Amino acid sequence: MFKSADPDYFIAHVDVTQIGEYWTEAAKLTGEASIGLMFRHLSASRLVTIAQIEGRVRAAGSEFVLACDMRFAARESAIFSQPEAATGVTPGAGGIQHLTRLMGRARALEIMLSAGDYDAELAERYGWINRALPANALNGFVQSLAHRIAKFPAAGHVAVKDRVNAIALAPAEDFRRDSDLFGEGVRNPEAQSRIQAAMKRGFQTRDAEMDLARMLGDLADR
Amino acid sequence: MFKSADPDYFIAHVDVTQIGEYWTEAAKLTGEASIGLMFRHLSASRLVTIAQIEGRVRAAGSEFVLACDMRFAARESAIFSQPEAATGVTPGAGGIQHLTRLMGRARALEIMLSAGDYDAELAERYGWINRALPANALNGFVQSLAHRIAKFPAAGHVAVKDRVNAIALAPAEDFRRDSDLFGEGVRNPEAQSRIQAAMKRGFQTRDAEMDLARMLGDLADR
Amino acid sequence: MFKSADPDYFIAHVDVTQIGEYWTEAAKLTGEASIGLMFRHLSASRLVTIAQIEGRVRAAGSEFVLACDMRFAARESAIFSQPEAATGVTPGAGGIQHLTRLMGRARALEIMLSAGDYDAELAERYGWINRALPANALNGFVQSLAHRIAKFPAAGHVAVKDRVNAIALAPAEDFRRDSDLFGEGVRNPEAQSRIQAAMKRGFQTRDAEMDLARMLGDLADR
Repeated sequence: MFKSADPDYFIAHVDVTQIGEYWTEAAKLTGEASIGLMFRHLSASRLVTIAQIEGRVRAAGSEFVLACDMRFAARESAIFSQPEAATGVTPGAGGIQHLTRLMGRARALEIMLSAGDYDAELAERYGWINRALPANALNGFVQSLAHRIAKFPAAGHVAVKDRVNAIALAPAEDFRRDSDLFGEGVRNPEAQSRIQAAMKRGFQTRDAEMDLARMLGDLADR
Repeated sequence: MFKSADPDYFIAHVDVTQIGEYWTEAAKLTGEASIGLMFRHLSASRLVTIAQIEGRVRAAGSEFVLACDMRFAARESAIFSQPEAATGVTPGAGGIQHLTRLMGRARALEIMLSAGDYDAELAERYGWINRALPANALNGFVQSLAHRIAKFPAAGHVAVKDRVNAIALAPAEDFRRDSDLFGEGVRNPEAQSRIQAAMKRGFQTRDAEMDLARMLGDLADR
Repeated sequence: MFKSADPDYFIAHVDVTQIGEYWTEAAKLTGEASIGLMFRHLSASRLVTIAQIEGRVRAAGSEFVLACDMRFAARESAIFSQPEAATGVTPGAGGIQHLTRLMGRARALEIMLSAGDYDAELAERYGWINRALPANALNGFVQSLAHRIAKFPAAGHVAVKDRVNAIALAPAEDFRRDSDLFGEGVRNPEAQSRIQAAMKRGFQTRDAEMDLARMLGDLADR
């Protein structure tokens, strides 16, 4: 079970000044400098994982929860975004693979091209999460589900995950390709210029990211 | 953005007396006499497309909006149908490919085998469209979304579309095969007989098609 | 059309003491001792099938309705479960293939790992069924839909099913592999021990299975 102690943020996104370090750490685990392949490692693992989401999950934060086996979110507080295209970059850590397979072409394109914020209710309708639940019921629900699953034989967990992953988890090469495209994208001068403009507006600060979707929409109004 | 100036109809369907001409026009654009491949050209293009749907979209009209990147519809007025099977014919311009991938086997079969009319709310639940919105909010929503996306770098649009299409847009050969099957289907004597019966009941007239699903259901009651 | 005369049960699951006989019967039809391949035979057939679900469908019962072309359920009474993992076994008759393709990785994993009971409303939201309808409207709706489809030319049914199945019906080898894994799973000593424990708590009795999900959750509390 993964949850956040911060009511406003689950995982905001990667710290864009630290991506090199993330790649180094990822390579220690999987042999490849790719956050997406590190997350895929979690999806393919024999461990059963559940994300309990309160507050904001954006970009690699969204991709982390997408790599979990299940996702439940607080109806009142959870906010989802896959906003890379606002700076001309593509999601690099599996978001394209998961979102497209979960909800199909049109909704995945909408989410990624709009770089918008989505609340838990809409995230449920689109299949981004398993279910939206009232905030005061969420922890109890996830605890109960986790304990129930933990009582069942591990051999069954492994076999079910293997067979489902064979159908629905994208091949490693697709994650690798998305990783590479992200790396190329962020080096693009236009992307760098947008990221710098975002920094001037408070990107990577707690306050400005409370309403990140609006800030990203304003970036080009220079 | 594609929208209709007629409140009752977005695109009714192809004019069945003009299919040869459509094929000729399609061939000028893509080199192949196929409406489905022409629509696929739109899906694969670097342009981002949004359908704003008020009124009826049926058959090739439905297939046109399915080829768009996103689809938003007026809750009060939009009506969807993929009705070819009522005359023994299969959808020829991509409907099979898109509907099956968006909503899975059972709902796609229901829609295509029933030849029924679906309102916007049900179309949203089934994933035929991104979202149903109140008619008086629809234009503002789509305008705002389109302007937002247009502000983001085009390089991001292209890359996101490429990666999503690699997963969720069916190969050209599947569209070609559906085109061919449609062409064979309409030449079948039973299909011709049903289409003639529909013509006698007002098929391709504005009034009769206000309630096309009922008329198609009555065709066999001769 | 398939429906049940018992208001509490559509198909409970296989009788675990009779699996060998089921395999023998399946082999007579398809040449292979696999319930999943027998069900796939139905999905691939030219017949159009609709399941009208009132009461419980679990395990192979769920897999039977998943093999049908469409599924409509009574909002007040239908209950769905794919509970094999509670005993360490994987669904053997197509459930993995259908659920994962219908609803994607996260919801399919939740259903199969939790071994929980799902009501009709949630089954609809997850795409397990086409739609949940009020119990008093269900039979009329399904009858009307079936008669409507039956009036349309059979050539259209066959062609639509062929094209949709080419996209969304898993290959026979995937069903065969799931069948084999189920067979291996049930011979596992831990699975046998869990199944025996379930038998002691009333598994395969009408009363105990009214609330099977709870009983399965209690199995490991020995």
